[in-house]
Amino acid sequence: MAVIAIVGAGMMGSAIGIPAAENGNDVRLVGTPLDNEIISHARETGEHLTLKRRLPESYRYYRFEEMDEALEGADLLVGGVSSFGLDWFIDSVLRVIPDALPVLMVTKGLMDDEEGNLFCYADYIRARLPGRRLRLNAVGGPCTSYELADHDWTQVCFCGRDMELLRRIRDMFRTDYYTVSVSTDEVGVECAVALKNAYALAVTLAVGLAEKKEGREGAFHYNSQAALFLQSFREMKKLLEHLGGREESLPFGIGDLYVTIFGGRTRKIGTLLGRGDTFPQAMEKLRGVTLESIVITTRASRAVRRQIARGRLREEDFPLLMHIDEILNRGANVDIPWEKFTAEYEF
Amino acid sequence: MAVIAIVGAGMMGSAIGIPAAENGNDVRLVGTPLDNEIISHARETGEHLTLKRRLPESYRYYRFEEMDEALEGADLLVGGVSSFGLDWFIDSVLRVIPDALPVLMVTKGLMDDEEGNLFCYADYIRARLPGRRLRLNAVGGPCTSYELADHDWTQVCFCGRDMELLRRIRDMFRTDYYTVSVSTDEVGVECAVALKNAYALAVTLAVGLAEKKEGREGAFHYNSQAALFLQSFREMKKLLEHLGGREESLPFGIGDLYVTIFGGRTRKIGTLLGRGDTFPQAMEKLRGVTLESIVITTRASRAVRRQIARGRLREEDFPLLMHIDEILNRGANVDIPWEKFTAEYEF
Repeated sequence: MAVIAIVGAGMMGSAIGIPAAENGNDVRLVGTPLDNEIISHARETGEHLTLKRRLPESYRYYRFEEMDEALEGADLLVGGVSSFGLDWFIDSVLRVIPDALPVLMVTKGLMDDEEGNLFCYADYIRARLPGRRLRLNAVGGPCTSYELADHDWTQVCFCGRDMELLRRIRDMFRTDYYTVSVSTDEVGVECAVALKNAYALAVTLAVGLAEKKEGREGAFHYNSQAALFLQSFREMKKLLEHLGGREESLPFGIGDLYVTIFGGRTRKIGTLLGRGDTFPQAMEKLRGVTLESIVITTRASRAVRRQIARGRLREEDFPLLMHIDEILNRGANVDIPWEKFTAEYEF
Repeated sequence: MAVIAIVGAGMMGSAIGIPAAENGNDVRLVGTPLDNEIISHARETGEHLTLKRRLPESYRYYRFEEMDEALEGADLLVGGVSSFGLDWFIDSVLRVIPDALPVLMVTKGLMDDEEGNLFCYADYIRARLPGRRLRLNAVGGPCTSYELADHDWTQVCFCGRDMELLRRIRDMFRTDYYTVSVSTDEVGVECAVALKNAYALAVTLAVGLAEKKEGREGAFHYNSQAALFLQSFREMKKLLEHLGGREESLPFGIGDLYVTIFGGRTRKIGTLLGRGDTFPQAMEKLRGVTLESIVITTRASRAVRRQIARGRLREEDFPLLMHIDEILNRGANVDIPWEKFTAEYEF
């Protein structure tokens, strides 16, 4: 039996402990200062306020002030905040734990710098905490929190630098329904699953376009979604190669793209934009919804433009990413450059 | 203006002429002996009987006995039959046309032989017509006929051996909504889009499993669909590599997989099997529906088993294909080997 402290009681942070608890581990769920209501509600009712599911009976709940107690004897710390809480998590949690405590981050994503370099959150954390030797790992792959809570069959990938440690963490979590691959391609897995946020927004533009064209909600056109999915595949693959990720990591990103198109919040904004809303109009309607897709699109496209300027990437390889960046950050209307997705392949 | 004779007036054969007719080409739709009713109905009403859409005013219709007239002055022959009509098409159409007439096959797929070799229909046609020098090309990629008829944005790939010819054919068909890539990787494109039939069946098992679990129709679990999509990606990639296809061709297969999961008939059988029907029970319910997915699954899995026996492929790389073969051809119940989809990637 292992002691697992999860810090961040949002939907995914709270759900990922379910298979671990069912494996007999001692799971301790620690709220951030923003999670007080979730923790109180769970203590009183055994139910998660936003996930709207019962959590395992064996879960123990802690407010952020009680984190030290939760970390006592812990074998693993799970970072369960969203991208928007990453800096807080670094400063308030990672800074105070011992290097020896293994960490599994649910939070994953991309950061860019002035040079147009893109790097994964694990590298960002290392850069923010110089001199530390944290044992960082991250979870990627197609998994929505509520379906995990419902015991839907799921495959994810735990990535990190130490295969032995990855195997040990995997064994805490894996069940018949929560199956886990492990990979030392940290950059590849993190980047592939981060990029899906940008491209899920892109694919779901077709949902809104179809609704606009037919003048009703729920009109589905799968040819156009598939054309965007196809192009997303190409651009994600190209970007992953550029970042030095391994080809074995791309399927996690593609699977994650699939689930995010259907199960994620990103679909809402893509649909609104496709229907004809400007980005500010769409954001107004989605007030309160945190969208990693927008952050990732902005960072990835900014970095790609810089790499293009340096001659290290080619603009014609990223017409879809460039277009969603124009929509989100440059006031453009949706006008998908379909013809730019075609190519001549002569071998 | 080009003269395009389409032989085979099924849904896709009839729909693919729409963009070509809108480009001002002379499109002549020739029914097979099974299409008499479709041709009569279209002549009388201008509408396609099974596609349930109006066809372009400029279309001209021919019964099979009138094929010679339709072929007079033709610049292109389109083969519009399904896999089940391929041998008929070879014997009744390809055998009688001049070698010089370019051919674009809507029909594409895989054949296997006793040695466990898989080859595309273009190669099968060449083997069936030795001594001929037909100018064969094929269409692949995510496109359902009714959405094409509705002018949904679509991207497909025309593949063949002669790039100049591919460009000419592309220019007959491409419009703002029907966008066309071209590729000389005939084997790669044909095989990738053929394999999607097998894997679309596999992914939609999760639709039926979710319905069974929740005891109602329309219960969607995207985590499990995505896990199967992820595994399909891996197996399609591996098989494509084995067949000598280029990596640039895989996106067409993946896009086609996406559209087939949602827009195709294969979804029905996958869902029924996932709900718990045996294969004979499911087939009984779907009487009259022609399913290329079953043919492709059977041929691909038979060839893969033979290659495994010869040590040229590894069984552990194809657990999903092996399982759907067991369901379709060996009386097995659906019992998806989720754990076999996990891997350890150490770099």
